[in-house]
Amino acid sequence: MTRSNERRLADEPHHDGSLLAPGPRTIGSTVRARVRVPLVCGTERLRLRTTPDAEPDVVDAEIESESDGAAWWAVDVELTMAVTNYRFLLEGGRLGRCWLNGAGVFHRDVTDAADFRISTATAPPGWLHDTVGYQIFIDRFARSGTDTPTPDWAITQGWHDAVDDTPGVRSRQWFGGDLLGIEQHLEHLERLGVTLIYLTPFFPAGSMHRYDASTFERVDPALGGDDALASLIVAAHARGIRVIGDITLNHTGVHHDWFTGALAGPDVPERNYYFFDEAEPYGYVAWHGVASLPKLDHRSDHLRRRFHDGAASVAARYLSEPFGLDGWRVDCANTTARHGTIDDNHAVAHALRATMGAIDDERWLLAEHCYDASSDLDGTGWHGVMAYQWFTRPLWGWLKGPEPRSLMAAVELIDLDGVAMVESMRHLAANVSWDARQASMTMLDSHDTARFRTVVDGDPDRHLVGLVALFTMPGVPTLFAGSEVGVGGDSMDTGRVPFPWDSLDDSEEFLGHVRALIALRRTTVALQQGTLRWIDAGTDSVTYVRETDDEVILVHLVRAPTDDIHVTFDELGVPSGLTDRDHFGATMFAHPRSPGTHLADHVLTLPGDPGAVIVSFPRR
Amino acid sequence: MTRSNERRLADEPHHDGSLLAPGPRTIGSTVRARVRVPLVCGTERLRLRTTPDAEPDVVDAEIESESDGAAWWAVDVELTMAVTNYRFLLEGGRLGRCWLNGAGVFHRDVTDAADFRISTATAPPGWLHDTVGYQIFIDRFARSGTDTPTPDWAITQGWHDAVDDTPGVRSRQWFGGDLLGIEQHLEHLERLGVTLIYLTPFFPAGSMHRYDASTFERVDPALGGDDALASLIVAAHARGIRVIGDITLNHTGVHHDWFTGALAGPDVPERNYYFFDEAEPYGYVAWHGVASLPKLDHRSDHLRRRFHDGAASVAARYLSEPFGLDGWRVDCANTTARHGTIDDNHAVAHALRATMGAIDDERWLLAEHCYDASSDLDGTGWHGVMAYQWFTRPLWGWLKGPEPRSLMAAVELIDLDGVAMVESMRHLAANVSWDARQASMTMLDSHDTARFRTVVDGDPDRHLVGLVALFTMPGVPTLFAGSEVGVGGDSMDTGRVPFPWDSLDDSEEFLGHVRALIALRRTTVALQQGTLRWIDAGTDSVTYVRETDDEVILVHLVRAPTDDIHVTFDELGVPSGLTDRDHFGATMFAHPRSPGTHLADHVLTLPGDPGAVIVSFPRR
Repeated sequence: MTRSNERRLADEPHHDGSLLAPGPRTIGSTVRARVRVPLVCGTERLRLRTTPDAEPDVVDAEIESESDGAAWWAVDVELTMAVTNYRFLLEGGRLGRCWLNGAGVFHRDVTDAADFRISTATAPPGWLHDTVGYQIFIDRFARSGTDTPTPDWAITQGWHDAVDDTPGVRSRQWFGGDLLGIEQHLEHLERLGVTLIYLTPFFPAGSMHRYDASTFERVDPALGGDDALASLIVAAHARGIRVIGDITLNHTGVHHDWFTGALAGPDVPERNYYFFDEAEPYGYVAWHGVASLPKLDHRSDHLRRRFHDGAASVAARYLSEPFGLDGWRVDCANTTARHGTIDDNHAVAHALRATMGAIDDERWLLAEHCYDASSDLDGTGWHGVMAYQWFTRPLWGWLKGPEPRSLMAAVELIDLDGVAMVESMRHLAANVSWDARQASMTMLDSHDTARFRTVVDGDPDRHLVGLVALFTMPGVPTLFAGSEVGVGGDSMDTGRVPFPWDSLDDSEEFLGHVRALIALRRTTVALQQGTLRWIDAGTDSVTYVRETDDEVILVHLVRAPTDDIHVTFDELGVPSGLTDRDHFGATMFAHPRSPGTHLADHVLTLPGDPGAVIVSFPRR
Repeated sequence: MTRSNERRLADEPHHDGSLLAPGPRTIGSTVRARVRVPLVCGTERLRLRTTPDAEPDVVDAEIESESDGAAWWAVDVELTMAVTNYRFLLEGGRLGRCWLNGAGVFHRDVTDAADFRISTATAPPGWLHDTVGYQIFIDRFARSGTDTPTPDWAITQGWHDAVDDTPGVRSRQWFGGDLLGIEQHLEHLERLGVTLIYLTPFFPAGSMHRYDASTFERVDPALGGDDALASLIVAAHARGIRVIGDITLNHTGVHHDWFTGALAGPDVPERNYYFFDEAEPYGYVAWHGVASLPKLDHRSDHLRRRFHDGAASVAARYLSEPFGLDGWRVDCANTTARHGTIDDNHAVAHALRATMGAIDDERWLLAEHCYDASSDLDGTGWHGVMAYQWFTRPLWGWLKGPEPRSLMAAVELIDLDGVAMVESMRHLAANVSWDARQASMTMLDSHDTARFRTVVDGDPDRHLVGLVALFTMPGVPTLFAGSEVGVGGDSMDTGRVPFPWDSLDDSEEFLGHVRALIALRRTTVALQQGTLRWIDAGTDSVTYVRETDDEVILVHLVRAPTDDIHVTFDELGVPSGLTDRDHFGATMFAHPRSPGTHLADHVLTLPGDPGAVIVSFPRR
C-alpha cells in the first residue's frame, strides 16, 4: 500500500494545443496561446520561442488573468510557415529559468523535436471531436444469411467454430460476415452510442482479411457488392453513424487486375505500378517479402491518378455518390511509397488529402502508423494516425498482466509503472500537433493486436480502467467490435473471433459501463476538447484532468491497491467559492470496485482502491 | 565539499558512431556496430532496431568478446536508405528491458528522434580528425602595414585603441588587419600547433566584419586583394595549415553588384535574386529587417548557378586555383533559402556539397547553425555545424561565472550543474550522426560571442578547464584568435579586440598549457576518433573517457571543490594485468591547480580540487 515511485505533476506549468485560441490558422495570421502557471511556481517572466525561417525568435507573454491558484499567461504566435513550432521559456520563482515544451519542463536546453506545433493546413474534420468509433472486421461481425457467392479461398466455418491461427488456414477461415449483416446490427451500435464505423477492407481479395485486394472496381460480391455498401452507409448515416473505409496504398494482392495487367507485358502502363526487379526472389518487391503482396511504385503518374490523386481516382470514387464514405483509414501508411532511397510518402499523403479536400473538408484521412509517426504527421498530409505509439502501448505497458506481450512489433513491451506510463504518453505525443493528436484514433485493441481483455489477464475490472482511460484521453476513442462484451484473444489472429451475438445478455453489466462511458464522452466537451493536464503519477495510480474554461473533469485510474491521493482545489483549478453548488464534485462515473471520492476542506481525496473514477467540477 | 547531485554513468551500456566499423557506407552494404555492455548489467539479449522503409525491424546481436568488465555485442546494420536510424533493445539482468539510443538508456518507448544515424553520403574530409582550428577575424588579427586603400566606411583606429560597441560605430572601426598580416604571423599559429584557419569574410563589403559583401568578384583590396589571399593560402599550406573561407548565402550587402543590378530594372536576371515585395518596409526582404542586408532568393536558377551550384560558381572559384580554399564556413546557413512557406535550404546545401565534391572530397562544408540543426544535418548537405548547441552552450552553462550570459540568442543561458551539462550534451548531440558531430566545429567562443575568459569571470584556471573539455571532446576544436592569451570581452562586439601581439610574453604560461593541449589532441587518436563514454557527473565535476581498442583516455573536469571520484579498472575498461607497465596511468595533462591522481588496488582516485586532469591507459 505504499507508493514506491511517485511524481506530483499538478504544480507544473502547462500548455498544449487545446490552449490555442480557436479559429482558422492561415499564413500571416496570429494565434493566441495561453499557458497555465501555478502561482506556487512564482514565475516572473514567460516568453514564447519560435523559429521563423529556422531562426529563433522570442517574444514576451503577459499575464492575462489569475484565478484558482494559477496565472494565465498569453501571447500571440505568428504563423508565417506551413508548420510553426514553439515552446516557452520561464524565468524566476522556484522553477528558475526553464523550457516548457510538449514533453514537460526542462532545466537545460532542448532540441526542437518536442516543441509544440501549429499547422496552417486545413483543419481535420470538426465532427471528430464528439465521435466515438467502432472497428468492424467484416468477416467476423455479423452475417445476414443472404445468398452471396462463396469466395474461392474460403474454408467455410460455422459462426461458433473456433478461430484457427495455423498459417495457411487462418487467412482462409470464412465465417461469412457481410455488409448487410452489419446493417442489420446497427441498433447495437446505436444503443452502444458509437458514431463512426471503421470498416476493414471490402474489396474482393484472396483472404478473409481482404488486405490483398484483387480489384478496386467493386465491393466484394461475397460481402453483398456495391449495393450493400451503399445501403449500409445510408442506413448508418440515418442513425447518425459515419463510416470510413480501409484502403491499402502500399501494395495490392497478387491477383489484382493491375498486377495481372503488369505481368501481361512491358508495354502496359501497369508495368510501372510495381517494382519489378530481377534481383528480388519473385521478380518484384513484395510487402515483407510476401509473394502475394506486390508493392506499388507511386512514382508512376498513371498509378497516382488512377488510385489516389484526383476526382477520377479509386479513393475519390468511394467517397462520392452512391457510396459517400466519410474517410479512409490507410493501411500500411508508414511504408507507402517508400522503398530504399525512394521516398514519395509525403507526396502521396498530400495528394490524397487534396483529393479528399476537393470533395469537402469533412472526410477523415487516418493513417496506420504503428511507430514514431511524427515526421509524417505535420498536419499537411495524414490528419492523424492510429495512436498505438502514444496511447495503446503505454497503457498496455501499465495495465497488462504478467504475460509478456508484444503490440505491433516483434519485441515484447516494456513493463511500466504509472510514472513511466505518463512519461511515455508525454514524450511520444509531444512530437505531433494537438490537432493531429485529436484527429488520431485511440484504441485498447484492434484486428492487429491481442484483445485487451486478455492483455489484462481476463480481469473485467482492469479492462474497465482501460476503458476509462480510452474515453477520457485526447483522440477518437474506438472500440474493436466484441471488446465491449469482453471478447478475448491472445494474438492478432485469435482475437478475430466472430461476434458473440448469442451471449450478449451475459455481458449486460459490462456493456452498461461501456455505454455510460461513451455517453459521458459524447456529452462532455472537456473530455472531447479540453486540455490534458497531469495531476499525479505513482506506481499504481495515475491522475489527470481534462479542462475547459467552464469545467474540470478529474480522472483517477488505479491498477492495484495504493495510497489515497489528495488534490487541492488550486491543483484542480477550481474556485473554492463554488462548493455549495449541487453539481460540484459530482461523480460522473465510478468503477464498481471504487469506494468513491471524498471532498472536505477544499481537498479532494481519491481512493487508492483499484478502479477508476471521473469527477466533474464547474469552474464558474 | 559534498556532491549534492550525482550520477554514476560508468555502468550504463554504451554505443556511439565511433563503434561502427570503419570504411565506406554505401547503399546495399552493411556496417558492423558494437555495443559495450558492462558485465554488471547482466544483459542477456541485445537487439538492433532499424526502420527500413519506415517499418521497424529487429535483429539479434551477438556477444563478440568479453573483456575488462564488459561484454562487447556486435551486429550488422544494413544500409538501404540515404540515412539509416537505429537503436538497441536490451533485455535481462538488472536493467531489464530497455532502449539504448543517442540520449542514453530508457525504460519506456522512445521516439526515433534520438536514434543513432548512419548516412550513405560521402564521408566528411578525413583530415578533420586531427585538425585543430583557429578563427581569425581579419580586421583584428594583424596588419602588415602595407599600403592598401582605406575602405570608404572606415573610422581608422590605432591597434591599441579601444573597441567601441556603439551602434553605427562598431561596424566601422577599422583597425586594418589584412591578409598579409596573417601570413606574417603564421609562425605563431604553427608554434601553437593549429592546422586550420577559419577566415571571416574577405570580400569587399560595407563594414569591418564584411558579412555584407558588395561583390564576390574579388578579394577586398583593403585586405591585399586576390594575390594576398592566394599567397596566404600557399604559405599556410606550406606550414601544414589549411584555410577555409566564410561565405554568406542568405543575403548580400545592399551595395552588392547583384543588388545594384536588380535595382536597375525588372528585366535583368538579378531581379529574381532577391525577394522584392512592396509590402516590405524597404521594398525587399532583408535579414532581420536590416535594410543593408537584402535576402537572396535561391529559387532563381541563374543565382544558384552563379553563386554555389557548379564549377562556374563563386563558391567553386575560390576553392580552385589560384586560391584553393579547403572549404567554406557558410554564414547564416540555418536561414539560407528559407522565407515563410518557401524552403529550399536542403537543395542549396546539396548543390553546394556537390559543387565541392566535384573538385574533390577533401573540402569542408561547415554551416553556421546556432540552434537545433538536426533536421539540416542528415549527412547529405552540410558536413557539420558550429556546435554552439551541443558543446558551447552546455559548457558555458556549467563553467560560467555568476553574471547572466546569452549565447547566440536573446535569452540568457540556463545555469547547469555537471549532471545537467552532461544531459544537455547527450540530448542535444543525440539527434545528429557521429560523422556530422565529428565534422562540426567546437569552440569556447567566436566572433559572435563574448570571450570565454570573461564568461568564466576572468579566471584563467577555469578557462583552462574549458580548454581541456574543448580538446578532449568530439568535433574540430577551434580557438578564436586571442583567446589563447586570455583576451576578454563581455559581448560579441567587445570581444573583437585587436590581437595583443605586444604582450604575448605575458601569457607564456597560459599559452604553454594551450600548446600542450593542442599537441596532445593532435597526437592522440583516442581524443580524435575514440568513443565518448561518460563515467560520472556531479554538481561540480564531470568525468568521461575517450577510448579506442588500443587506449583509454580519462578526462576529469572540476569547476569547484568537491569530493574525490573513484573509478575502477572495469569502469575504465582497462585490463588489470597491465598495471606494471611504465606508461600505465600516465598523466598526459595536469591542471596546475590539480594535485594529480592516485592509483591503488585497481582503483583510480581523481581529485575533487578545481582543475582538470587527463590520464592515459593502454588497453593491451
